[in-house]
Amino acid sequence: MQALYKNSIISLFLLMISGCSNPQAPAPLPSWHETSSKQEIIEFVKDVTTENNPRFVPQAERVAVFDNDGTLWSEQPMYFQLAFALDRVKALAADHPEWKDRQPFKAVLEGRSESIIADGEHALIELVMATHAGNTTEEFSAIVKDWLAMAKHPKSNRPYTEMVYQPMLELLAYLRANGFKTYIVSGGGIEFMRPWSEQVYGIPPEQVIGSSIKTKFELRDGTPILVRLPELNFLNDKGGKPVAINQFIGRRPIAAFGNSDGDLQMLQWTCSAQGIAQDAVEDKSFCLYVHHTDEEREWAYDRNSHIGRLDKGLDEAASKGWTIVDMKNDWKQIYTGKATNIAQLSFLYRHW
Amino acid sequence: MQALYKNSIISLFLLMISGCSNPQAPAPLPSWHETSSKQEIIEFVKDVTTENNPRFVPQAERVAVFDNDGTLWSEQPMYFQLAFALDRVKALAADHPEWKDRQPFKAVLEGRSESIIADGEHALIELVMATHAGNTTEEFSAIVKDWLAMAKHPKSNRPYTEMVYQPMLELLAYLRANGFKTYIVSGGGIEFMRPWSEQVYGIPPEQVIGSSIKTKFELRDGTPILVRLPELNFLNDKGGKPVAINQFIGRRPIAAFGNSDGDLQMLQWTCSAQGIAQDAVEDKSFCLYVHHTDEEREWAYDRNSHIGRLDKGLDEAASKGWTIVDMKNDWKQIYTGKATNIAQLSFLYRHW
Repeated sequence: MQALYKNSIISLFLLMISGCSNPQAPAPLPSWHETSSKQEIIEFVKDVTTENNPRFVPQAERVAVFDNDGTLWSEQPMYFQLAFALDRVKALAADHPEWKDRQPFKAVLEGRSESIIADGEHALIELVMATHAGNTTEEFSAIVKDWLAMAKHPKSNRPYTEMVYQPMLELLAYLRANGFKTYIVSGGGIEFMRPWSEQVYGIPPEQVIGSSIKTKFELRDGTPILVRLPELNFLNDKGGKPVAINQFIGRRPIAAFGNSDGDLQMLQWTCSAQGIAQDAVEDKSFCLYVHHTDEEREWAYDRNSHIGRLDKGLDEAASKGWTIVDMKNDWKQIYTGKATNIAQLSFLYRHW
Repeated sequence: MQALYKNSIISLFLLMISGCSNPQAPAPLPSWHETSSKQEIIEFVKDVTTENNPRFVPQAERVAVFDNDGTLWSEQPMYFQLAFALDRVKALAADHPEWKDRQPFKAVLEGRSESIIADGEHALIELVMATHAGNTTEEFSAIVKDWLAMAKHPKSNRPYTEMVYQPMLELLAYLRANGFKTYIVSGGGIEFMRPWSEQVYGIPPEQVIGSSIKTKFELRDGTPILVRLPELNFLNDKGGKPVAINQFIGRRPIAAFGNSDGDLQMLQWTCSAQGIAQDAVEDKSFCLYVHHTDEEREWAYDRNSHIGRLDKGLDEAASKGWTIVDMKNDWKQIYTGKATNIAQLSFLYRHW
């Protein structure tokens, strides 16, 4: 908001100097092809931000929620947080000789991670709990940052944070420039995402919602700390997503973005008839599925994938007229380049 | 933030017209006497918002957390939410003949509410669960609003929302005008506070943290709803407050305001040596206890009170040099008048 505020001040000066809006304001969503997906996004944003439009929504109610894995960054050949957890198992194995004979650690240490991947998000959460309990919230944040600075994706050999989708970064910036508050609502760990979400996505920690383990307040030698416990607190998936949105935000979003059946309930909650204005005739909500269709530049998978399965959601999106992004044909570019970052994107949209 | 943004634009115009800052900008905290409490607040705010000051804190990290009961509004002779729960028991009694013989309902229906009050916050939470499960989140929000519109405090005969403290409203507005994000972190129910927190305190629902019962996502005749279940999700008191702050905000606050021992851990977490900048020599944090010392205009209670007991906290505040507000001598006015509301306060601070 600080950036928006500063940018608005700059825009105001420009307006006063030029006497009209800046003719060089860039077109939104430059990495999106001119297909229906882009048109539907822009039409929605224009409608809800135009005061005399029947679909107008006041700024405070412009809440947009985004899944993370497979929606904002890749999730193949395994959830990136699982790669982190496997690296932690290896790093901590010397202190845990019992892991050699205990699953799922045994499989990890023997290099057979596929068996864990097949178990999906639950196995990931369990592994995170087992490998990360006992440290403090601040220690864990430092571990995540250190890992991200070193780790490389097994296929692309790029840092994981460079495998975020450029078109989605533009979408986040475009929505924020139009008064939206953007939230992550992910099955991934809340404290795994927060250390880097602001730098990478421009989403501050207080707008990151995810799965969590329990923490406990303690005074250690008189210093208050929060210790991470090996106990699941909340699994933020499927029906858990609307529950968490209500718990954290206390408002129903007007826009939701996902890529799997795990996001379906979040999209249903956002795009149901009983939106913010129950008496409204106009539908003021927007739902979008990212469909992974690009096996050359990314991956192609949907109904039969262990990771990010999109089956029921694909049918419901079609029947309800939600926007379905065809990554191969809708996106000019998949990943953000090294040079692109969220600060530059904010610059790009300063005139919006 | 929208208000801040608009106000900033107005200020900018005024600046451009006058060529200097508005000489008629009001002094902050007008309902506070010129005592040390007021001086300490203003000194802190000036320090953390002045860029070349060693205590400077970037705007994104200016998080301030406020307890609600006894800190922002009164809590005597019983927590206001308990008054709500008792009224609900009476309203629903006809549908629950079994309550006549079952505690705590029996005591309520027989007019012996004191026995429940003595049990404190736990009893309140239990009563809320028992009387409010089964409805949807939207239905419950409407019930709370309807009650607040009708209910009167037994002693003052005023609506409960007029028993908020004028000096604290000014403090909230003053902090926000200086780039702080203000949060409620209360033992009270999160969905009891959210329907009115924005109108009364200028705090939007996404910045309200409280105790909660579990909710469940359901499709009812194809329409997604969240049903409130008779099961405690989280009790936001004592050590739970730092846990919830970490869960919801993901940042350590730099300012914390409370009135009871239930707030002590939140104040310890905020004002411990390991603040946001662990290597910082300067203490960039601020902790304040509201001490109820005014038996004429409000109530006087501390170490021996069933409600809002302030015992350990009072000792720790003294030993650590936290600010202790003496309501009787620090505040010119206790309650907000009918005519004062948060919109007017924002107007008051538009030049800050």
